[in-house]
Amino acid sequence: MSNLNPPRRLLFGPGPSQVAPRVYEAMTKSIVGHLDPFFFEVYEDVRTGLRAVFGTQNSFVQVISGTGSAGMEASVANFVGPGQKLAVFVGGFFAGRIAEMGERHGATVVRFDMPLGEAATETQATEFLNRERPDVVAFVHAETSTGVLQDPLAITRPAHAIGALTISDCVTSIGALPINVNAAGIDVAFGCTQKGLSCPPGLSPITLSDAAVEHLRARTKPSSVWYMDLKLLLEYYEGAHRYHHTAPITSFYALREGLALVCEEGVQNRFDRHVRMHQEFVRRIEAAGFRMFVTDPARRITTINAIHVPDGVDPVKSRKALVDKYGIDIGGGYASLANKIFRVGLMGPLATMENVDMLVDAMVECIQ
Amino acid sequence: MSNLNPPRRLLFGPGPSQVAPRVYEAMTKSIVGHLDPFFFEVYEDVRTGLRAVFGTQNSFVQVISGTGSAGMEASVANFVGPGQKLAVFVGGFFAGRIAEMGERHGATVVRFDMPLGEAATETQATEFLNRERPDVVAFVHAETSTGVLQDPLAITRPAHAIGALTISDCVTSIGALPINVNAAGIDVAFGCTQKGLSCPPGLSPITLSDAAVEHLRARTKPSSVWYMDLKLLLEYYEGAHRYHHTAPITSFYALREGLALVCEEGVQNRFDRHVRMHQEFVRRIEAAGFRMFVTDPARRITTINAIHVPDGVDPVKSRKALVDKYGIDIGGGYASLANKIFRVGLMGPLATMENVDMLVDAMVECIQ
Repeated sequence: MSNLNPPRRLLFGPGPSQVAPRVYEAMTKSIVGHLDPFFFEVYEDVRTGLRAVFGTQNSFVQVISGTGSAGMEASVANFVGPGQKLAVFVGGFFAGRIAEMGERHGATVVRFDMPLGEAATETQATEFLNRERPDVVAFVHAETSTGVLQDPLAITRPAHAIGALTISDCVTSIGALPINVNAAGIDVAFGCTQKGLSCPPGLSPITLSDAAVEHLRARTKPSSVWYMDLKLLLEYYEGAHRYHHTAPITSFYALREGLALVCEEGVQNRFDRHVRMHQEFVRRIEAAGFRMFVTDPARRITTINAIHVPDGVDPVKSRKALVDKYGIDIGGGYASLANKIFRVGLMGPLATMENVDMLVDAMVECIQ
Repeated sequence: MSNLNPPRRLLFGPGPSQVAPRVYEAMTKSIVGHLDPFFFEVYEDVRTGLRAVFGTQNSFVQVISGTGSAGMEASVANFVGPGQKLAVFVGGFFAGRIAEMGERHGATVVRFDMPLGEAATETQATEFLNRERPDVVAFVHAETSTGVLQDPLAITRPAHAIGALTISDCVTSIGALPINVNAAGIDVAFGCTQKGLSCPPGLSPITLSDAAVEHLRARTKPSSVWYMDLKLLLEYYEGAHRYHHTAPITSFYALREGLALVCEEGVQNRFDRHVRMHQEFVRRIEAAGFRMFVTDPARRITTINAIHVPDGVDPVKSRKALVDKYGIDIGGGYASLANKIFRVGLMGPLATMENVDMLVDAMVECIQ
């Protein structure tokens, strides 16, 4: 085989996003065994950093050894099952995935479908949840496929009012947007490493409220997926360190360093930087004649900007021109939004004023 | 947080094993998107390398984005379910895990329990399978917890005679021992990256015979685990590259380079080297008065040597002395073998004559 020689890409898509040099450096460090005390020190550092980005003092903060979708399925498989009703607020591709997983794990799934580009209001959520009376309610905090930010309280307040547990997909918010899981009323939150945390994909952080931990402990039947069984995970990572699986050591080194960078910048500073770059990007891209897909500025994710493909533009050719000419990788739309939107990520090391300048200039030149 | 500064360990345990420098180097390379054509080139290189180590021309050779245990659960969840009978040959911890997964996924599980340290004979397997008539038969090729090598044909011949599908855990054999899945009659084989392939943990290679692919295609109900759904995985990795999950790009870079090293050495040369080092280790450790746990030399795994803890020896203190004095990490026993055996791995870059010398000297000094 020839030498591994990846092209240099500027990852301005919905994720994976640019990896920080310090994170790459961490992955060259010698691995230790998965039961080595040093590994558990690293794991504790990771938990400390995750508490900061989740904005929580939850005692349950752990990591699934799989990508964000594995974290999603762990959240579903441990809390949803036969005889239970799962309500999902669906405003895009990823919420649809939660609904599909709920069905696979045997729950009765009811959906509240929203027009793409919109979020649920508390009035809508209250009416829907009071009618359906689900056991578990799931939604996406920042919907990667549309660029819509959901106010968690609009859903978690009426959900808790009927005694339901809440699950929030925080894959696109973690590390770049405030989550504050407890204040937001989220019982189960999961994320990923390859967006706001500037690490390669491969792990999924997950946190549970005390109420969710109680639900977990009260389970008499083991969760349907052994690999994602949060009870077994707890026994491995805490207390006696009873062997579960062989943790991906190197990915944890990377995550530790990604989180260290976030904490050194300051979590709030980092969130503010992403807001500023988002606002600057929107200002400049609208000035160039583009239209944002999410019309309400308050409902836009600051890390992923969805933009209408202008009339007469070939989106595939335009994205290819950006890659070929500048190595700039931006995303397209999924499913019914295919060829209708671009998705432009401004995350981590790429969320700087210089990059916004360079990116907008390149987009104006290549998108036609 | 302080700088990440892992202790240097010589990983002579059951895995993870030492990572080759070229693999560390690969993980510093820039990541690309999970739908980037370059990523799929890397993926095809990985598949080519995996065919060599699995010893197969199977068209289905893929990778699960999780550790070996995720590959195990993918093998179970896609082929075993309610209304089906799964027979498991249990001679150690990992076969027991397959049985547990079978139960979680709703199958009726029957076990053929063997004394620890022994493998099943064809006579035993035939008698058991003819009596039980299972739909699927699972076994562990190289049982990490005991050091026992199972002759696959002793199980797959009688399994196929009754029309059952066969699953083999090849976590500890892949990359260091010949598997030859088709000649061995294995329909579903899964492995890991962190033992014979000298990569960090995090991915699980999997291959299916044409018969297993037919079973998969004939499924009308989707597999119980979305993340491990092999049909969805096929759609992502082949043909239209329909998005499934965000593949852990960096882990694939590492695996590509780990496989490139294997292929450059020559698969057969690598297997032969592991046999030679194993034989040399056994000769020297027996000369030093230790006793191998697996009495039949033909049933010993060449990569993991299980050794009785000598009378009067404190195994925990001895292992700690090896770490403290030489940075040498060897494994202990699990469950009923806790404190009864040591497990010594000789894999990849550590499987050299100099290392055998150094290791045996250190063990003789520290184990007391």
